[in-house]
Amino acid sequence: MSLQTVMTVGALEDLRALLGDRLSTSQAVREHHGKDVTYHAGHPPDAVAFAESTEEVAEIVRVCAAYKVPIIPYGTGTSLEGHIAALHGGVCIDLGRMNRILEVNDQDLDCRVQAGVTRKQLNEHLRDTGLFFPIDPGADASLGGMTATRASGTNAVRYGTMRENVLGLTAVMSDGRVVRTGGRARKSSAGYDLTRLLVGSEGTLAVITEVQLKLQGIPEAISSAVCDFESLKGAVDTVILTIQSGIPVARIELLDEVQMDACNRYSDLDYPVRPTLFFEFHGSPGGVHEQSESVAAIAAELGGGDFRWATRQEDRSKLWQARHDAYWAAKALRPGAEGWATDVCVPISRLAECLLATKQDIRDSDVLAPIVGHVGDGNFHLVYLIDLNKPEEIAKAERLNERMVNRAIAMGGTCTGEHGIGYGKIAFLQAEQGEAVTVMRQIKRALDPDNIMNPGKVLRV
Amino acid sequence: MSLQTVMTVGALEDLRALLGDRLSTSQAVREHHGKDVTYHAGHPPDAVAFAESTEEVAEIVRVCAAYKVPIIPYGTGTSLEGHIAALHGGVCIDLGRMNRILEVNDQDLDCRVQAGVTRKQLNEHLRDTGLFFPIDPGADASLGGMTATRASGTNAVRYGTMRENVLGLTAVMSDGRVVRTGGRARKSSAGYDLTRLLVGSEGTLAVITEVQLKLQGIPEAISSAVCDFESLKGAVDTVILTIQSGIPVARIELLDEVQMDACNRYSDLDYPVRPTLFFEFHGSPGGVHEQSESVAAIAAELGGGDFRWATRQEDRSKLWQARHDAYWAAKALRPGAEGWATDVCVPISRLAECLLATKQDIRDSDVLAPIVGHVGDGNFHLVYLIDLNKPEEIAKAERLNERMVNRAIAMGGTCTGEHGIGYGKIAFLQAEQGEAVTVMRQIKRALDPDNIMNPGKVLRV
Repeated sequence: MSLQTVMTVGALEDLRALLGDRLSTSQAVREHHGKDVTYHAGHPPDAVAFAESTEEVAEIVRVCAAYKVPIIPYGTGTSLEGHIAALHGGVCIDLGRMNRILEVNDQDLDCRVQAGVTRKQLNEHLRDTGLFFPIDPGADASLGGMTATRASGTNAVRYGTMRENVLGLTAVMSDGRVVRTGGRARKSSAGYDLTRLLVGSEGTLAVITEVQLKLQGIPEAISSAVCDFESLKGAVDTVILTIQSGIPVARIELLDEVQMDACNRYSDLDYPVRPTLFFEFHGSPGGVHEQSESVAAIAAELGGGDFRWATRQEDRSKLWQARHDAYWAAKALRPGAEGWATDVCVPISRLAECLLATKQDIRDSDVLAPIVGHVGDGNFHLVYLIDLNKPEEIAKAERLNERMVNRAIAMGGTCTGEHGIGYGKIAFLQAEQGEAVTVMRQIKRALDPDNIMNPGKVLRV
Repeated sequence: MSLQTVMTVGALEDLRALLGDRLSTSQAVREHHGKDVTYHAGHPPDAVAFAESTEEVAEIVRVCAAYKVPIIPYGTGTSLEGHIAALHGGVCIDLGRMNRILEVNDQDLDCRVQAGVTRKQLNEHLRDTGLFFPIDPGADASLGGMTATRASGTNAVRYGTMRENVLGLTAVMSDGRVVRTGGRARKSSAGYDLTRLLVGSEGTLAVITEVQLKLQGIPEAISSAVCDFESLKGAVDTVILTIQSGIPVARIELLDEVQMDACNRYSDLDYPVRPTLFFEFHGSPGGVHEQSESVAAIAAELGGGDFRWATRQEDRSKLWQARHDAYWAAKALRPGAEGWATDVCVPISRLAECLLATKQDIRDSDVLAPIVGHVGDGNFHLVYLIDLNKPEEIAKAERLNERMVNRAIAMGGTCTGEHGIGYGKIAFLQAEQGEAVTVMRQIKRALDPDNIMNPGKVLRV
């Protein structure tokens, strides 16, 4: 047996004593926990530990630390850049059973949840409080996972991302220490911002077990609308002008004609197969009216059709569910194909140029790749629909992706607006952040000297 | 000569060769650079280096690193917890000459400045663009210093603090490496959030030399108002209800009757000497009207008098200048006394309880201590006006401060909402953050192994 195998066997024995049945080494469970929803190759962990408390996570980490066995935290497995693949084996800690909502402070618009609570579960729980939690990646992800990957979604243009909405957290460090960062105050200048350091650290610095979140009051008035455009450029320019005018839209989403076709088919809709914007406006009735009039005027100037309104809750839900299902709709366009989801984010002034050049690249290839985007932030997504048995298709998608990401970086943007680095974008992080990556590496070494925390992600140590 | 003296002499020789006249060892310059505006004892550095570029800062840091001589970054010297005191001697790097505005991207609502640019200088520069930078601590501080101390001010309730408004920065690490963090994209999930780690690190991890900032569009309509109250509780409850109702006030500031008296005298105003709220509303004309009506209705219910409006730019400027001069007005209440400014921040639901208990403590002592606060965030300030020649006065202020800070922490708040830790609040940081401080210390050791970056601040290593 290799040393690594010996160490792993030792760790699993100790964990079995600790967890009993809640340590699984079954192949099905391991494979399920090593593969996310996109094309990146899965790597099953050696075992999956189903933790039930912060203290239990700490004990698991202490065992793994003693044997120098890798640890991979797992929420719902819906990340997109191979974050949960056990590249070096080790123990996956499934936090799904830590799904208690610990407190809701309605007067302070905040709450505290265990890491395994999902965003939909939280909003269901909040239903009667008049409050909601706005961050909404497509999947019903866990709030711990969303924190670890600095998730955002359609509401980010108004409410920010997990960066702005996590007030503090509880985390288990690589030696099993439990730390609580941040607090409930809306602002603080007390010491280093460990909360923000751990938000987006993708399990490579600590295992997040609890999260304190900001909540928002449900707006008095909410109105959604759909508007199709003659050209992609008209749609994107509408977004740019809307943002530059300071209109506080709550959501402004772009779907190109390929994606609209996919959504119509998948979600049983009948929208024109043209570049389209989905809007949502939040505020007082007067404010919503004012915002929507302003945006409609901009759209009309730029080749937009009439606004199709959805004001009833059920119509709005159907609309946004269709948007959230965009990835699955895209996949259904080519049965049997794998979806490779990717994203970039650029300053809003460069959005049209970046999007149109990307669209042209796709046209010039024969890869099917619908475009959707949280365009109010300058963020957009592609799904390359490829046959993994055809290396030439993978190579083509890789070329397209590299061109798009490098273009975004050259425009002052980022290699990922919300999907994260995982193991899919490590080289692009280096290209984007340069020397700053050496500082990230110093922090990684300091907080995880044995490189057991989700090794092989974000950085190569 | 001690080893430290030998090393310092060596460093100063090398720096003299590098900087010529721009290295000063004059006593007046040294003393000026070692003392901030509040009561904390000053400690002059051994020399002051006037840097003119990031590369020059890097060279200075490399010299200091070679001799293991401390480095203290300096903006305008307006911090409040002894941040700039050269506790262990060393070289102060004055960044005031790095005062160029490098770019303004009006279409993207962002800009890039050198660290020595002050907030007023930036807003003056932006005057014709329709944009402004909202963060406004009382002093006309440098944007580098504001970044390093995670400053906020009166607009934070609507626009956030430096944490939310710094998109990226350039920093010189303790070995002279120059890194550029973040970027111009509005959001990113690319790697560790080094920007947020350095925001608020108070010069203990790096010297910040350039900052990329978010800008805001100047609202179509702005209106300010003043409203006095029968009781402090009525004023605070008005704040709480306003925030809980989700009314997007731009500013909501509390001044107790002692501070109002001080401001009337210092700024030649004639407001009633009663607990008072200063408001500002931003938005469309309709939105501003709607907000102010809502708040006026809340205030009327809680013992508030009529709103006195300031809609003309010059009246608004006078009002807010008086607010920004509150510290100097407080000091003028007791000529010859020193001002000890302190602040805490609590969840909004605890604000009344925290403020009223603090007020009672002050009444029970015979210390003069006006209260002002950015109360929309749950943040308030005290200035203890004490005679430094009377140890019993210092002791009384220390007791008051300890009670207030511990109360705030016990309520889920923070030992400082915006003043920072410096060397004045190190013990309170420990009390508030507990085990998390050990993680801060690991990061400090990793990024500054010789403890030369503003040693003795934030943490004891």
